[in-house]
Amino acid sequence: MRHILIIGIGAGNPEHITVQAINALNRADVLFIPTKGANKAELAEVRREICARYVTRGDSRTVEFAVPIRRTEGRSYGESVDEWHAGIAATYEDLLQHELREGQSGAFLVWGDPMLYDSTIRIVERVRARGRVAIDFEVVPGITSLQALCASHRIPLNLVGKPVEITTGRRLAESFPAKSETAVVMLDGEQAFQEIDDPDAEIYWGAYLGTPDEIVISGRLADVKEDILNARAQARARMGWIMDIYLLRKGADFDE
Amino acid sequence: MRHILIIGIGAGNPEHITVQAINALNRADVLFIPTKGANKAELAEVRREICARYVTRGDSRTVEFAVPIRRTEGRSYGESVDEWHAGIAATYEDLLQHELREGQSGAFLVWGDPMLYDSTIRIVERVRARGRVAIDFEVVPGITSLQALCASHRIPLNLVGKPVEITTGRRLAESFPAKSETAVVMLDGEQAFQEIDDPDAEIYWGAYLGTPDEIVISGRLADVKEDILNARAQARARMGWIMDIYLLRKGADFDE
Repeated sequence: MRHILIIGIGAGNPEHITVQAINALNRADVLFIPTKGANKAELAEVRREICARYVTRGDSRTVEFAVPIRRTEGRSYGESVDEWHAGIAATYEDLLQHELREGQSGAFLVWGDPMLYDSTIRIVERVRARGRVAIDFEVVPGITSLQALCASHRIPLNLVGKPVEITTGRRLAESFPAKSETAVVMLDGEQAFQEIDDPDAEIYWGAYLGTPDEIVISGRLADVKEDILNARAQARARMGWIMDIYLLRKGADFDE
Repeated sequence: MRHILIIGIGAGNPEHITVQAINALNRADVLFIPTKGANKAELAEVRREICARYVTRGDSRTVEFAVPIRRTEGRSYGESVDEWHAGIAATYEDLLQHELREGQSGAFLVWGDPMLYDSTIRIVERVRARGRVAIDFEVVPGITSLQALCASHRIPLNLVGKPVEITTGRRLAESFPAKSETAVVMLDGEQAFQEIDDPDAEIYWGAYLGTPDEIVISGRLADVKEDILNARAQARARMGWIMDIYLLRKGADFDE
């Protein structure tokens, strides 16, 4: 049996790490660090920094690996994700067989929290189901960009006693403002907030949260929409990648 | 000017604390600990333990205070909360004026994360708006019970690319299963899952998460509903209080 630790490392600030995660990092014989993909170089650097700062045992190894790229042409979204996950599962299986010995522990360091818009848990479950390498696993939570967003804007996520929806750019139009008073949007490559037909809605936007490059903008959607689009485009051009998230709160008739 | 630190301390496990929160605790001249209310004694003990374990500066003070109780008779939910928050704001104002000197920092230790079903941010904003004591404040995120729930069950919160709703027991019927495929329920004194008309729904339930008393149960709603009700009633009788949370995933036709 090999033991997998799926560890949330927070949203960009190395101080987001929990004591539980530090202890888990120090239980790992091998630390697996993904190194390829759009913003992976940048993120790999944060992971290396976290290991350098918090791993105190001297006998663990770091193993870097390339993550397969998701192919989208001629595939539905579901097919594309399924194929991609199968590829990552094969990569993990290979890593676990060749880099980890029987009885050892290996850690995957996950941006944010493994529960939120991350597939490491699903992929490890897939590896286990394939049955070629015997594993068990545990999950350590971490601070998400959603929490970093609210902390930087110093706002509660929900209105008093009210629900919140967490969704993606692709699905925002289905939920806000008709269905939800508060919606948080992650994974939005299209800046779906532009299409929201509620000029009084409030938006709280953030990019590179928790890092020295953090940018936050908030205000009435109609007033700050262009500022956000401009800031986002400039930052993306300057940095070569962007990770952003935003919260929308229904305008006019919300009744906290 | 007095500086307020609103610090998320995690969901029950003292190791949920982040390095950022530890550093913030050590910037506080005064640590404010609430001590009254249903489960406040238990929770005050966890806060004291966190201070004892992580506060390394020797010159800070702990100040315990009683939180006003919310009155509900003859008031709407909104009125009841508003009156309660006004009472807490008066308590905070008094603490800040009498226990904190000009230029000092005071910390409020918040269960979970200050952004999620917690009103400390709102109340501090109220104190600031009243203008009797000049303050500024910052927010430090913390691990929520929602994250502890997913970590203990080793599940992702969302299905691939799908939205999630976070709601309360009072509002669950409005959202699940018609509106949401995945709903997380916090603040449920009525065990609203009993009324859900989707026997194939899956439930992931947890109580006292992150503590040595943690209980988790999961399965098909129709199969485990009674087990959860029984476990909850017994634990509550034994402990004198309960904090629980659960995730519901739509049955039958969900299409991950």
